[in-house]
Amino acid sequence: MKAAVMRDWALTIEELPDPRPKSGQALTKVLACGICGSDLHLLQHGERQMALGAEMRASQPPDPMAPHPLDPHGSTVMGHEFCCEVVELGPDTSQLAVGDRVVCVPGVFDETGVHSIGFSSVYPGGYAELMVLNDLLALKVPNGLPSHLAALTEPLAVGIHAVNKSGIARSDAAVVIGCGPVGLAVIADLTMKGVGTIVAADLSPRRRQLAAQLGAHEVVDPSAEPVIEAWRRVDGARPLVIFEAVGVPGMLDAAMLMAPKGSRIVVVGVCMEEDRVRPLIGIGKELNLQFVLGYTPEEFAHSLHALAEGATDLAALVTGTVGIDDVPRSFSDLANPEAHAKILVCP
Amino acid sequence: MKAAVMRDWALTIEELPDPRPKSGQALTKVLACGICGSDLHLLQHGERQMALGAEMRASQPPDPMAPHPLDPHGSTVMGHEFCCEVVELGPDTSQLAVGDRVVCVPGVFDETGVHSIGFSSVYPGGYAELMVLNDLLALKVPNGLPSHLAALTEPLAVGIHAVNKSGIARSDAAVVIGCGPVGLAVIADLTMKGVGTIVAADLSPRRRQLAAQLGAHEVVDPSAEPVIEAWRRVDGARPLVIFEAVGVPGMLDAAMLMAPKGSRIVVVGVCMEEDRVRPLIGIGKELNLQFVLGYTPEEFAHSLHALAEGATDLAALVTGTVGIDDVPRSFSDLANPEAHAKILVCP
Repeated sequence: MKAAVMRDWALTIEELPDPRPKSGQALTKVLACGICGSDLHLLQHGERQMALGAEMRASQPPDPMAPHPLDPHGSTVMGHEFCCEVVELGPDTSQLAVGDRVVCVPGVFDETGVHSIGFSSVYPGGYAELMVLNDLLALKVPNGLPSHLAALTEPLAVGIHAVNKSGIARSDAAVVIGCGPVGLAVIADLTMKGVGTIVAADLSPRRRQLAAQLGAHEVVDPSAEPVIEAWRRVDGARPLVIFEAVGVPGMLDAAMLMAPKGSRIVVVGVCMEEDRVRPLIGIGKELNLQFVLGYTPEEFAHSLHALAEGATDLAALVTGTVGIDDVPRSFSDLANPEAHAKILVCP
Repeated sequence: MKAAVMRDWALTIEELPDPRPKSGQALTKVLACGICGSDLHLLQHGERQMALGAEMRASQPPDPMAPHPLDPHGSTVMGHEFCCEVVELGPDTSQLAVGDRVVCVPGVFDETGVHSIGFSSVYPGGYAELMVLNDLLALKVPNGLPSHLAALTEPLAVGIHAVNKSGIARSDAAVVIGCGPVGLAVIADLTMKGVGTIVAADLSPRRRQLAAQLGAHEVVDPSAEPVIEAWRRVDGARPLVIFEAVGVPGMLDAAMLMAPKGSRIVVVGVCMEEDRVRPLIGIGKELNLQFVLGYTPEEFAHSLHALAEGATDLAALVTGTVGIDDVPRSFSDLANPEAHAKILVCP
């Protein structure tokens, strides 16, 4: 099959052997798969990321259910925001049928343990023609939700999880710093939850427009007005949760400096580098920092149903559709926030 | 009156004019006043601390009830952990009587607003013979609690507040990193609250002994056994709250690296310098960081009553008693954790 393969931190288009479903697994063909910022991160910072992963594992007791780390010299097919169609059932499957359209939390297990789909050199992810899923884990796409929207289940789940972990109440206010796909997913869920004041900031006019479309009550260009001042202008009174969805060095300290006393900061932007903070700022204002990652299977299922039932409409997030051959170019294109939010790979 | 005066970030012994009580205030003589790590910090890092304070104020709307910043060129008498005796009542007082022994949250207000006792160049703190308190705010020392123990109300309240903000349950486990006065106050309150597993670490044998005396179930020398391994040895299963009570650069990142998935880190040690953290560690484990400062008036009163009713016995914390003349030397002595935990100034 054709696939965009990462090997030694470079992307190439290659022919790989077709994957085969093991017991309890289904072979699927990829219909649509979003390109995620974490894929760009992995390609750029993979070596550092793996070294830190090894340090983190070494600091904890062994966890047999932790996903296998990828082999940087192996053939890794990224892509974990996929919608697929079942084309063949392996032995011992009971839930799926050939022809089912499905989404799935990006993990697959077999007798060797758990593998992260999209971050594995054993099981390919969605930047390929075919992939293997567990019959037990895949969710059928309901309500005729189109595949390109079903592929947004995963990024929306990230926003739902961040909002859930924040413990925000409808009567609180939210400031969302950064309106890339993660910030936009946060805004979509804040809107679904009916949070009273949602103020968002992004340097890109295109992304600001998407933020307003998804329900942000006030959207600002932070180079023209600091987002915290925009919040003070339109609200300034409710308990505040700040969602940091940029993830570059310096943003955490900036969020801490702007935060009112006693506020919560949810760190959902993934800063790959070491960062510098001034703990005295956190202490002086008794801030709470909640780092978040991923989602639960329940949140993933909730995300699918929110999309299928039209509780939120993320169609505008999709700013491009490409084939497998165009994956390497798309990675570069995504660096331009004016041109793109989410690019889907449709093999 | 005689006082240890800080001016231009140097400590000297001087004669200052006796303070006079205004309306609603009482003049008191200092019986005992503990030397706090934050006083050492202020003397050493005061300039940087004031610059950051100015930056933090500039980033927020004006707060008329925020304490006045001190004048570095003025005469600042530090000392905010005091027990005093009322010697004279100003006009319009109703609660206090001459001869009352009192403690008080270290703030005093008048028609000009609020001043932080011990960090003010207008109202002197406890490293002097006399100080002024508000009649409304002072709490009479109950049960004949000796003054040198009543002076520990403030540092114990810091521990009580940190434990309250952590939201720790009796069925959780606690790791306390650093057994200086703050870490010990945390341990004392964890013990009062009946937290099931308390594991503490300090490089100093003297401080480790105090930690055990105050109720830590397991106390380790972190150079011999990492505290998180000690926790795994004696527990390793309960939800964990880590109290970082050291406050030097690098400790936050170290606490994040040792923390099990999903744990809470309470930052109660005050790191005066910029610090470096790896946000990916926090994200990968979905950690929660709660920065804490001070206490509420209710927690302060609770602390006084816990001491007065013998719910905890902090007598062993007091490792030295000095006069005002010895304050400068005591600041140096406190650098040696083997010799000292808490030094009281008894003018």
